[in-house]
Amino acid sequence: MADQYAHRGDDKRPTEIPVIRWEEPPEGPVLVLLDQTRLPAEEVELVCTDASALVEAIRSLAVRGAPLLGIAGAYGVALAAVRGFDVDEAAAALAGARPTAVNLAVGVRRAQSAYEAALAKGGDVRQAAAAALAAARQLHREDAEASGRMAEHGLALLDELLPGGGHRVLTHCNTGSLVSGGEGTAFAVALAAHRTGRLRRLWVDETRPLLQGARLTAYEAARSGMAYTLLTDNAAGSLFAAGEVDAVLIGADRITADGSVANKVGSYPLAVLARYHHVPFIVVAPVTTVDLDTADGASIEVEQRPGHEVTEVTAPQVPVVRGTEAGGGIPVAPLGTQAYNPAFDVTPAELVTAIVTEEGVVSPVTAEALAEVCARSRRVTAG
Amino acid sequence: MADQYAHRGDDKRPTEIPVIRWEEPPEGPVLVLLDQTRLPAEEVELVCTDASALVEAIRSLAVRGAPLLGIAGAYGVALAAVRGFDVDEAAAALAGARPTAVNLAVGVRRAQSAYEAALAKGGDVRQAAAAALAAARQLHREDAEASGRMAEHGLALLDELLPGGGHRVLTHCNTGSLVSGGEGTAFAVALAAHRTGRLRRLWVDETRPLLQGARLTAYEAARSGMAYTLLTDNAAGSLFAAGEVDAVLIGADRITADGSVANKVGSYPLAVLARYHHVPFIVVAPVTTVDLDTADGASIEVEQRPGHEVTEVTAPQVPVVRGTEAGGGIPVAPLGTQAYNPAFDVTPAELVTAIVTEEGVVSPVTAEALAEVCARSRRVTAG
Repeated sequence: MADQYAHRGDDKRPTEIPVIRWEEPPEGPVLVLLDQTRLPAEEVELVCTDASALVEAIRSLAVRGAPLLGIAGAYGVALAAVRGFDVDEAAAALAGARPTAVNLAVGVRRAQSAYEAALAKGGDVRQAAAAALAAARQLHREDAEASGRMAEHGLALLDELLPGGGHRVLTHCNTGSLVSGGEGTAFAVALAAHRTGRLRRLWVDETRPLLQGARLTAYEAARSGMAYTLLTDNAAGSLFAAGEVDAVLIGADRITADGSVANKVGSYPLAVLARYHHVPFIVVAPVTTVDLDTADGASIEVEQRPGHEVTEVTAPQVPVVRGTEAGGGIPVAPLGTQAYNPAFDVTPAELVTAIVTEEGVVSPVTAEALAEVCARSRRVTAG
Repeated sequence: MADQYAHRGDDKRPTEIPVIRWEEPPEGPVLVLLDQTRLPAEEVELVCTDASALVEAIRSLAVRGAPLLGIAGAYGVALAAVRGFDVDEAAAALAGARPTAVNLAVGVRRAQSAYEAALAKGGDVRQAAAAALAAARQLHREDAEASGRMAEHGLALLDELLPGGGHRVLTHCNTGSLVSGGEGTAFAVALAAHRTGRLRRLWVDETRPLLQGARLTAYEAARSGMAYTLLTDNAAGSLFAAGEVDAVLIGADRITADGSVANKVGSYPLAVLARYHHVPFIVVAPVTTVDLDTADGASIEVEQRPGHEVTEVTAPQVPVVRGTEAGGGIPVAPLGTQAYNPAFDVTPAELVTAIVTEEGVVSPVTAEALAEVCARSRRVTAG
């Protein structure tokens, strides 16, 4: 493939994106977020002085991505506690901001529990608030560390599968620091390969309908100075056929006990293409993504998203048209057209070469190996 | 799949879309086109009173699609002749309006030859102009007839492969009456199934980056009163996995001597998915699409389209932003992002279940069977 398609990262900037941070200016503590709805056109920070502002930021998708939502939720509880608001009320509002995001509720609960435990031990509200903040910071740190360990394990796997380096990696959706306390999941592995000079190219699927690849992954790749190239999801087949893809690296929304992987719609077609072309298909996700209580892929209920995500065009600068269609965007399909718009798809274990977690690599993907990695994580947590 | 995703064609209208027509009002003959750049938002007709207006319409994609371009080119020569303009000059301008569209040059040449032949036989310019118009009308008629025969052969094939009817057909890009003098290629087969009550659903891939599926195929399906559902190209895999696709029907831009099929990008991934799920993958194209002079798929040069088709959002109503990016649309990817944007991909013969032409069905797809169908066509033309 000709090099003119690669973005050479000429506008290279520091890779540290302040996606979320706690600050304590003289006016009182605040949670500062990078407003992801404005990317990549603008890098705008959103300052939350209370939990309700954070709830609004979560609902508007200014902050998004499962691990990051957990961290945001925990900081939100700490913010309410430190500023003297009702902690239970704030926790309930935060946990309910996006009911389907399990990590959000888990993060909220973790800070809330720390707060309650401090009170129960006889601490005052100030000490309890400090405990909640410490819990949020701990979750943030753990997530960043998990990212680092996934990157390490993933890079070792790439080196094992593809000796010699010069990896050309295809990725889908957005799995970098915008969804994580650290550098993400699949993207973190690509970044590690980039930093060690082993990444020749990152192929970025645009990821319809919401274009997380074009908007967010391209943004992260540009900031990291990677050689990256954007493509329509349709064009991935041509890359495989031309022998231009050495590995597929994707994240996961949920991994069931049998190793089935639910991820952003479009992942499964990539898995089938990868199999047809004998290319490794690698899933990178923290152990918390593994849901041992769900037996198999068929048991996953696939969320259906609104049709207007497909029938209308929206972009940060596209003026919203009121009163025409459900989504307020500009219709591209005939009015009245309805759409099939599943949020994710399910890839069966037999198409997955490996699952990379912070606790190690599962390959081949079997129920036993997956359960073993989860048990390893529990031992670490308990230890 | 739940029926709420289907468009039931409540705004059913006559299926005869006046995509191109010759009219002779008192002010003199004109060529009337349906302006495809305004679809599906508006149905606007474009009246060409001379060849240069038609050249502009071709360049702006108001009229598009290989077979239709041939017909338009022939009518354009007739228009110049009837209105007394320089026929050779008009023919040269029309043939060069889109240099890569072979059908355009062939259609232009056909009307021009008829004009010259009439003059050579001692006719006057009026008689020669009438001969050019007759040649254009003949080409138009032939194309419509070819559509009808493809639909007939294709429907018989569907019935053979899928006894019992209730076909759920997936299609890609736009292959209906908007690209043809008749009802098109793949879409014409789906339409025939619809009219005979055998089509349960037409799944319409949106077809990134130019959204011909969302904009044009959905428009044609709605007008025909079909039960159709739009999806992102990414979501096709989920449909296959759910057993919701009985057959794939697509068109072709070029078919090489070995049966390799060049078609709109995204066709090849569908062929791989169809093979993995044991679903027939059927190509519908007139014999003129078969290029026996090109040996195989590897010999096809794949056109690379501008990256701004991927990095920017455009829609009929999106205001053009001047001076920011090459395409004048609204950027969705970071500025400076470059894209890999092949116009089409190549599906090898072994993934193609059948090629349906107006001369019959080629299945299995072999070089011999393909050559035989082409020879049949030549015999008919010569006879």
